[in-house]
Amino acid sequence: TKLWGGRFEESVTDAVERFTESISFDKQLYKHDIMGSRAHASMLAHQGLMSCSDRDSILQGLDEIESQIEGGNFKWRTDREDVHMNIEAALTDLIGEPAKKLHTARSRNDQVLTDFRLWCRDAIDAILSRIKHLQVALVTLAEKNEGLIVPGYTHLQRAQPVLLQHLLLAFVEQVQNLLLATCSTAGTGLPIDRFMTSKDLGFTAPMSNSIDAVSDRDFVLEFLSANSITAIHLSRVGEEWVLWASEEFGFLTPSDRVSTGSSIMPQKKNPDPMELVRGKSARVVGDLVSLLVLCKGLPLAYNRDLQEDKEPVFDSVKTVIGMLEVSAEFAQNITFNRERIKAALPAGHLDATTLADYLGIPFRTSHDIVGRSVALCVSKNCQLQDLSLEELRSINPVFDKDVYGFLGVENAIKKFCSYGSTGAEQVASQLQYWINKLNLNRGNDQ
Amino acid sequence: TKLWGGRFEESVTDAVERFTESISFDKQLYKHDIMGSRAHASMLAHQGLMSCSDRDSILQGLDEIESQIEGGNFKWRTDREDVHMNIEAALTDLIGEPAKKLHTARSRNDQVLTDFRLWCRDAIDAILSRIKHLQVALVTLAEKNEGLIVPGYTHLQRAQPVLLQHLLLAFVEQVQNLLLATCSTAGTGLPIDRFMTSKDLGFTAPMSNSIDAVSDRDFVLEFLSANSITAIHLSRVGEEWVLWASEEFGFLTPSDRVSTGSSIMPQKKNPDPMELVRGKSARVVGDLVSLLVLCKGLPLAYNRDLQEDKEPVFDSVKTVIGMLEVSAEFAQNITFNRERIKAALPAGHLDATTLADYLGIPFRTSHDIVGRSVALCVSKNCQLQDLSLEELRSINPVFDKDVYGFLGVENAIKKFCSYGSTGAEQVASQLQYWINKLNLNRGNDQ
Amino acid sequence: TKLWGGRFEESVTDAVERFTESISFDKQLYKHDIMGSRAHASMLAHQGLMSCSDRDSILQGLDEIESQIEGGNFKWRTDREDVHMNIEAALTDLIGEPAKKLHTARSRNDQVLTDFRLWCRDAIDAILSRIKHLQVALVTLAEKNEGLIVPGYTHLQRAQPVLLQHLLLAFVEQVQNLLLATCSTAGTGLPIDRFMTSKDLGFTAPMSNSIDAVSDRDFVLEFLSANSITAIHLSRVGEEWVLWASEEFGFLTPSDRVSTGSSIMPQKKNPDPMELVRGKSARVVGDLVSLLVLCKGLPLAYNRDLQEDKEPVFDSVKTVIGMLEVSAEFAQNITFNRERIKAALPAGHLDATTLADYLGIPFRTSHDIVGRSVALCVSKNCQLQDLSLEELRSINPVFDKDVYGFLGVENAIKKFCSYGSTGAEQVASQLQYWINKLNLNRGNDQ
Amino acid sequence: TKLWGGRFEESVTDAVERFTESISFDKQLYKHDIMGSRAHASMLAHQGLMSCSDRDSILQGLDEIESQIEGGNFKWRTDREDVHMNIEAALTDLIGEPAKKLHTARSRNDQVLTDFRLWCRDAIDAILSRIKHLQVALVTLAEKNEGLIVPGYTHLQRAQPVLLQHLLLAFVEQVQNLLLATCSTAGTGLPIDRFMTSKDLGFTAPMSNSIDAVSDRDFVLEFLSANSITAIHLSRVGEEWVLWASEEFGFLTPSDRVSTGSSIMPQKKNPDPMELVRGKSARVVGDLVSLLVLCKGLPLAYNRDLQEDKEPVFDSVKTVIGMLEVSAEFAQNITFNRERIKAALPAGHLDATTLADYLGIPFRTSHDIVGRSVALCVSKNCQLQDLSLEELRSINPVFDKDVYGFLGVENAIKKFCSYGSTGAEQVASQLQYWINKLNLNRGNDQ
Repeated sequence: TKLWGGRFEESVTDAVERFTESISFDKQLYKHDIMGSRAHASMLAHQGLMSCSDRDSILQGLDEIESQIEGGNFKWRTDREDVHMNIEAALTDLIGEPAKKLHTARSRNDQVLTDFRLWCRDAIDAILSRIKHLQVALVTLAEKNEGLIVPGYTHLQRAQPVLLQHLLLAFVEQVQNLLLATCSTAGTGLPIDRFMTSKDLGFTAPMSNSIDAVSDRDFVLEFLSANSITAIHLSRVGEEWVLWASEEFGFLTPSDRVSTGSSIMPQKKNPDPMELVRGKSARVVGDLVSLLVLCKGLPLAYNRDLQEDKEPVFDSVKTVIGMLEVSAEFAQNITFNRERIKAALPAGHLDATTLADYLGIPFRTSHDIVGRSVALCVSKNCQLQDLSLEELRSINPVFDKDVYGFLGVENAIKKFCSYGSTGAEQVASQLQYWINKLNLNRGNDQ
Repeated sequence: TKLWGGRFEESVTDAVERFTESISFDKQLYKHDIMGSRAHASMLAHQGLMSCSDRDSILQGLDEIESQIEGGNFKWRTDREDVHMNIEAALTDLIGEPAKKLHTARSRNDQVLTDFRLWCRDAIDAILSRIKHLQVALVTLAEKNEGLIVPGYTHLQRAQPVLLQHLLLAFVEQVQNLLLATCSTAGTGLPIDRFMTSKDLGFTAPMSNSIDAVSDRDFVLEFLSANSITAIHLSRVGEEWVLWASEEFGFLTPSDRVSTGSSIMPQKKNPDPMELVRGKSARVVGDLVSLLVLCKGLPLAYNRDLQEDKEPVFDSVKTVIGMLEVSAEFAQNITFNRERIKAALPAGHLDATTLADYLGIPFRTSHDIVGRSVALCVSKNCQLQDLSLEELRSINPVFDKDVYGFLGVENAIKKFCSYGSTGAEQVASQLQYWINKLNLNRGNDQ
Repeated sequence: TKLWGGRFEESVTDAVERFTESISFDKQLYKHDIMGSRAHASMLAHQGLMSCSDRDSILQGLDEIESQIEGGNFKWRTDREDVHMNIEAALTDLIGEPAKKLHTARSRNDQVLTDFRLWCRDAIDAILSRIKHLQVALVTLAEKNEGLIVPGYTHLQRAQPVLLQHLLLAFVEQVQNLLLATCSTAGTGLPIDRFMTSKDLGFTAPMSNSIDAVSDRDFVLEFLSANSITAIHLSRVGEEWVLWASEEFGFLTPSDRVSTGSSIMPQKKNPDPMELVRGKSARVVGDLVSLLVLCKGLPLAYNRDLQEDKEPVFDSVKTVIGMLEVSAEFAQNITFNRERIKAALPAGHLDATTLADYLGIPFRTSHDIVGRSVALCVSKNCQLQDLSLEELRSINPVFDKDVYGFLGVENAIKKFCSYGSTGAEQVASQLQYWINKLNLNRGNDQ
Repeated sequence: TKLWGGRFEESVTDAVERFTESISFDKQLYKHDIMGSRAHASMLAHQGLMSCSDRDSILQGLDEIESQIEGGNFKWRTDREDVHMNIEAALTDLIGEPAKKLHTARSRNDQVLTDFRLWCRDAIDAILSRIKHLQVALVTLAEKNEGLIVPGYTHLQRAQPVLLQHLLLAFVEQVQNLLLATCSTAGTGLPIDRFMTSKDLGFTAPMSNSIDAVSDRDFVLEFLSANSITAIHLSRVGEEWVLWASEEFGFLTPSDRVSTGSSIMPQKKNPDPMELVRGKSARVVGDLVSLLVLCKGLPLAYNRDLQEDKEPVFDSVKTVIGMLEVSAEFAQNITFNRERIKAALPAGHLDATTLADYLGIPFRTSHDIVGRSVALCVSKNCQLQDLSLEELRSINPVFDKDVYGFLGVENAIKKFCSYGSTGAEQVASQLQYWINKLNLNRGNDQ
């Protein structure tokens, strides 16, 4: 029978029990539920609302239950509704009367929110460590690929040449922002200090934050938003690597450890993990939308709808952790095809902007001159550096023979010098910055 | 080792295997996978691409595997990736060589789509039967509550009186639209006839619809859209019943069979199932958004991202079925509080519009007259029928003593007569329409 | 002053007026509002609820107002709240007393829904014509590119060769499904017949569908779902063309009429319209989500929230029409680079599956043999057709010299023969099917 | 002709121009675009890349253009594509040659992101001031309603009595979290210091953050997430006030200044502004989803899709500001119906939990005793305080006559004493905290 059954004469129907149960998913809060009950019992004893011997029975009982659960020997019962009631009822079975005093001055609404906040705090830690791990993998990959020039794209059209290291460090930088955003979630939404203080003091006020506390799910929305941004971000990394792994780009080859084959086409080697990183972003966004829809238009304080807040979070966290782990592993298992990339570089007039910089005349005018030079290349099917000085001068007499020091991707790369650009020195100093920041102690052999 | 392992030298990492596996959820397609393989084997034999004895071995083997699965004796293996490979490999273990011929002229991409379409077809049937069941529950509830007048609301402000039956039949009508929309999903998106024809002919073309077939997920998007509309619809029913069950409305009482209590407040009786119906709409919308995000911007043909198409559908179907079942059960377990409703009716000037109709003068003028009459009631804290003829005439001389035949909710209800209105005859004929349509054979005792 | 001002003593604040106004967007319903009022006046006269001369004044007044609006001479007033009140009040200014009778037996809630349904009906027609137009553009493009073989992809990895015509017809086919889905929206959600019947009979029941009619927004949700599916679909076409236009693929070149340049990189030629087709899918999905969130958890009948139903629909329709138009125009303005495609074909072992078919042994065995053949090619950096018969036989003695008739993409294409495949005859007959279906009368000159 | 037209021979089609234009919405960035160009010109001059006299011409020209725009005398041209090109081209028309040098070392991608970040910074300031304004309105409302007890709800069922002030301060508290979250968005996502530093130094590096800078939209996603959380939050406030304004609750009456009437039902007084606050949350969520869908799966660096990033932000900001303003105005224009609330308080056994606290025995036991007491009340249709001591003792002998000091809502409120509870002293001290924090200097008259 239900613990709230006092004024109830009939039990709920099977369909209702099945539809409203939460034990199938909220049982994963067990560790945090027990943690909260320990603190609550200690506080009750400290405040004189419970004897010390009752408290000790409770603490011992909770230890016993925790090891039952971790040993797989705990029997979860659907008729006991949720993780809180399961543990409390098991405690009563185990230690009898003192267990009944544990629920003094707290409601399940308080309890579930405390548990869930503690769980989220751990989840944020787990995500942060994966973000850092991904950064390490990217920096390591950058270190291995010094000097490699690749095309930079906008509109998926070739734009300017960039050092691969520059591009990989852009990923590292972006991932750093995710880390900051996630931390800020922890900061604003999760009253971590309060839990800590509460615990240190052995004190939790009954109904301490009454209305606000039980109805607010902003910390969950913030967490799922941060996860969605991370996931969308990683979906773009996924798209990028999938493109680069295609026959047409051919810039990278994933090792067998991070590729799969086809059941019908024996020649295929698919970069599946990154396709799934791209795809799984969708469920993280779906989880956020679920929570937003859930909370929309709910009247104040607790409504049973809010039971639905947990599964999207569990799913979101599990997915984001998987995406981060697999992205790191992919970075550890790819080889850039230097020869192929080098052969591909001439196409696309990547040096056109450098040429405009060379001219040193008003940009709108030089843009026009270079535009006509490129048009000439297109009609002759050649590169800018293949045009003779006469040809260039026939477009505009401003050209001189030193122009050839600005043409070709190697020359173009050398001309970048401003802060944050893809110039070799700039990139080397950025790389060193990240090696230090991530404490990648490379020893003497580097 | 993987079935596509020919050119692969290393196996994938654990993290990749865990992240990319689908067997944990796609195994629920087993029945439809076996159904598809039976048809495929028959076709191959018919076309002379396989011997009849090989076909018979395969069919027998599939029977054996199906009963293993249903008996819980089948061992699903993650290293065999998905439901298709698990069944095919088990078939090979069981019958040897002939099993290797089964994959002739089909790819896993074809296979999974066929399986999934068949699964969705069954899911649509399951939803349709629950929709009809809900209609039966609502019509039955309407039959039990003849003559009960309740306030009609707009803006959650009282508007005009309506018969409760009229309101319940509005639900039935809306649910009918859901049924039509779901059917239309089945119609446009799911090429059911083709499956049937294919089966009858014992014939499936290899790569039959090559590009279109393997990349298109429109049928899934249509299905999840239909589910979302159903879910949002039910969320509104949930809101309505939760309001009606509140102390403030007090219009209905759910039985103990569909309510729950509070762990801390012994007096509470919460309409949880309908709160959760309202809340669970959120995950159905989230599932739709996941699929839309998933498909957005994918290049043509199969991409591994699309593996993510199944879990949202499984979740959406399970949730919608639960919502429909519980809504029907709630309708079967509520009592309308006739006395309480009757006592509440006078408030809110529900008869004001009827009064405007009475005046028989240009509506904009009568609206103004009635508006001033209501203002007089508000200042006197009385009902329209409590105003004396003199008071009414002081507002406008158009009033005569027959006005009292239009005041009060019972009179107001009687004045409704147009098609589809809440007039008693109209509603009775609507009710009879639905009793017939739903084949509710009530026998002689009614 | 507001038309409902009878019992109100103060007018709303500026901020409230600004926040709640709808005239800035709902004025685009004017044509359908006037259409509805015409039918309503005729019905009222027919039912004896209004004199014929009043009706005639009203009809004449509405004509006058309609031409004022279309001539840009109508003054929309925010203090008159919405399109309905603006037109009704202008009518009163114009013809006096009879105008006040027009609102008999209808509420604004009825009116706005009628207007909106009529508007959506027109919008669906507009979309359907654009879908057909896109099909014509695609079929025309297919006709121009007979015989061109391109790589088929899964996982963005090269899979099998396909005829470009086959691929373009896959688009035509998919777009046909969008057309069916959109039609079905019209069918289930929009009670078109009822409007027509109503109009023919000159009859609309007052409060005809009272509760259901005013609160239900399922037809809007269905429409926005259909638009979202269309938009997501087109986002994939956008992705495809953007990839093909890249330097790396280099399969197509858009004409200057559908490309743009860069303000800084003179050599760039960007396929912007298709990038925006991909990107604008996002707002169509956002519009759907807005409507779903809007309706979630609303209590029955009209709530002012529902005013928010129109802007997302207007935006969705405008965007989808633009996406379809631009997609058609892009198809009319691209050239496939035959030489470049031909040169690219050998890479990727597109004939591997054909080789497996050649072997004629159990598929799982042949998959393995071909896999090892491909591995040999990879190590030798050559194509399958470059392997000598000895080399092939060293892998498995099953090979004979007729194997070379199956290798190379031209041979591979010739081997496709099943219904719906990319074989030349199959594709030609599909193309003819679409030419006929779309009534593309090509005359004798083709 | 377009500014990038060098190598282009034909201009784009009308449909493409219409579909790809952004000037219709990005012109609202004009102020920030001019601000950015001023800083850029100064930097170029400082670095010796432009003469001081050119810079001065540019600065003067920009001043002139700014006042033209603000005076409504600037002619925006669609053929000049966007706000950047419109201003630059107008500058060239105005000052000639020097204007052509302004685009040195920056791309439109840099420019638009700088403009947009500056715009968002201002938008965040605007939102923060509205959040604070809403807090002031709520605290002022609380001050006016000292001592008023209202029912507290969970599951929309009456739970425990609370002071209205406590509830209003819960809103203030929640809104404070929104403020923190919005600030944190500003902190992590918007590199404000960098802009400021850049400006102070008169220095911006060409391509300063090349890849990362132009492709990243995380700051937009963070901003829209913060807005969505705010909007969902306010939707709940909207729901609450709409419920309270209903006839059934009857707890508050909005003044005419924040209500509207019905075109057909003269007695109606609808709390439309708060219905629309609830409803408009939907578009804010839709805007967030649009951005998430937009960014999903995009390859690195700028893609034209990203042009779609602005309208959702403009719409989101405008909507959230409106929601906050109207919520504040509603709070300033409502009256709580003290008599009606007082009359309603006895129902619902709000003192049941206090009774459980009274018992001072293990909570699970007392829960059961109180549950049975409530059941007795339900059967006798009375309140807990109406039960005689004998009746109470028949349930359990633990009751004594001091129990009556715990029954009734006034007594129940007095028993709350823990930190953060709804006890009178606690609430008074919270109120004082907020008066101080918001600098509500009340002078001597309070």
